[in-house]
Amino acid sequence: MSATSRRRGPLIASGTETVTQALAGERRAIARLISLMERGGAEARQVLSQLHPHTGQAHIVGITGAPGTGKSTLVAEMAKVYRRQGQSVGIVAVDPTSPFSGGAFLGDRIRMRELATDRQVFIRSMATRGSLGGLARATADAVHVLDASGYPVILVETVGAGQSEVDIARVAHTTIVLQMPASGDEIQAIKAGILEIADILAVNKADLAGADNIVTALQAMLDLGSARSEWHHGQLLDAEGVVSDSSGEQLSWRPPVLKTCALRGEGVEELLAAVQTHWQYQCDTGVREYRERERANDELRRILRHDLMARLLDRIADTDLVDTVERIVAREEDPYSAAERLIAASGLEAG
Amino acid sequence: MSATSRRRGPLIASGTETVTQALAGERRAIARLISLMERGGAEARQVLSQLHPHTGQAHIVGITGAPGTGKSTLVAEMAKVYRRQGQSVGIVAVDPTSPFSGGAFLGDRIRMRELATDRQVFIRSMATRGSLGGLARATADAVHVLDASGYPVILVETVGAGQSEVDIARVAHTTIVLQMPASGDEIQAIKAGILEIADILAVNKADLAGADNIVTALQAMLDLGSARSEWHHGQLLDAEGVVSDSSGEQLSWRPPVLKTCALRGEGVEELLAAVQTHWQYQCDTGVREYRERERANDELRRILRHDLMARLLDRIADTDLVDTVERIVAREEDPYSAAERLIAASGLEAG
Repeated sequence: MSATSRRRGPLIASGTETVTQALAGERRAIARLISLMERGGAEARQVLSQLHPHTGQAHIVGITGAPGTGKSTLVAEMAKVYRRQGQSVGIVAVDPTSPFSGGAFLGDRIRMRELATDRQVFIRSMATRGSLGGLARATADAVHVLDASGYPVILVETVGAGQSEVDIARVAHTTIVLQMPASGDEIQAIKAGILEIADILAVNKADLAGADNIVTALQAMLDLGSARSEWHHGQLLDAEGVVSDSSGEQLSWRPPVLKTCALRGEGVEELLAAVQTHWQYQCDTGVREYRERERANDELRRILRHDLMARLLDRIADTDLVDTVERIVAREEDPYSAAERLIAASGLEAG
Repeated sequence: MSATSRRRGPLIASGTETVTQALAGERRAIARLISLMERGGAEARQVLSQLHPHTGQAHIVGITGAPGTGKSTLVAEMAKVYRRQGQSVGIVAVDPTSPFSGGAFLGDRIRMRELATDRQVFIRSMATRGSLGGLARATADAVHVLDASGYPVILVETVGAGQSEVDIARVAHTTIVLQMPASGDEIQAIKAGILEIADILAVNKADLAGADNIVTALQAMLDLGSARSEWHHGQLLDAEGVVSDSSGEQLSWRPPVLKTCALRGEGVEELLAAVQTHWQYQCDTGVREYRERERANDELRRILRHDLMARLLDRIADTDLVDTVERIVAREEDPYSAAERLIAASGLEAG
């Protein structure tokens, strides 16, 4: 306990200095701030406040897909192409099985080494201790750090399924969903949900048999979605007023389906071209601003919920909460009535 | 809109009657209450308050695993064995690719039909519209409905990965994680995280080549975890005081690794025996009560956060929130300072 407090002390004192260094692109300062984001707490918030004016510049690209689809290899190849184009790249890996997270085969590690020694590439894998909700927040905050530190492109790798997919779609401007060739039986594994978050679909390991089948299946699913006008972005924009081009036609983005073979570096340049086209589309149509607003709204609400809860907990005794939980377990009180009672007891409503 | 209001009207009026019918096990009433849980809102809360005294009886069993591991088939076979044992079974499918959700191949549908016509089996797949957070809540609430309605066993099928896995581990007393045989390259797909949520590991499709390799890999991972004493349950119990047996030795649960072939119904009875052993273990050691308390605590906090936010939104103008989001996007204000300002403006702290 005291060791932790001692370690935290100096960081608080030099917090502003570390921020200044991170804003100047100093790698050790950036790393320290991301660690701070993983720990969370008041100090992390203070730093985020300071970073905020410097954020909003980066193009954040999410890469998601089931384990085994080759996300890390693709991310590494994408980073290499960006580097050849002279761009610096930030990489945040949220997948605990990612080679970026250290749990890698030798082959993967060798592929990563080239990147790891490039000073214009910042690689960070997020620790998974704590709640997944906490991890999603820490990831978003790590992206803020890299954004403020001047990385024009930030690649975020997440294991694809469930909440994490959706979280990454909220953080990223462009979400790439990876599939890989599969036998007929496994095509059911293409979840309807992925079409809602995918801006680009990439069938990786396209040298394997069955790649074209998956491409065809994905295109068919896209056709179906298109016919029903249920595009995610179309829907989003409808709610706020449809974005139209000059001829009055509704603009929408149909996710392209690309084949890649990341291990051989094939199709990666085409993928980056599609990423760039999607970015341009977002800037041209107002989708970028719309998403920016959505993100800010989500973040504000999350902070409000957290802060309100912290105030409530400050105003009631710890024993109140423990006793209430006991009463709920004993079925003496239901949780909804208990919540009403605790809020009343806190005096938060009295004002 | 008015059609919706009209449909809701009668349900509010007969809400208590519907609850009484559901408590008596009437299927249509149960179905209506679960639909109500999917919609959420004040009426759902009222019903949950009424149901709460009748909950806490069921053994909730979560089944999770990646798409293609055969979750639905296994769930169906488990239900059949429970039926042969004379138990009624509730099934909640959260996986949108689940045959229970309708998106099924003919073969799956035929396997399900036998269950679907059994009056002692209640099958419900949860709609995925809305947020995943909302889905997790609706799923937990649907389980409450089935629990209060007297189903002694409730099987919850979720697609395995990310947040949904963790959510199900929080809802379920016993979590079964499915794996399937894989080639060497794909063994990396065994995520470290699953060991933290698995009470039982089942290698399904065990007739395929490589089943024993996966069993060996899982056992090795368990050995590693055991050596480091990082068992999830052990950890949980340590925080609250270690549960010990009479000899003073620490009790902990090592997840058994079982082979099943759900398509042929093989290994399913052994799996149910392990489920029963795990339940007995939880009852004997106090783990069941501990988890019950954790669940109540989580639920209470979730409700508190929601209710506090609702009160804040009641007290500030809609335009305040919209304007604040604009200021955040324009980098004129950071979200943390904005949250402080809005809470002050709401007067919620004044009391």
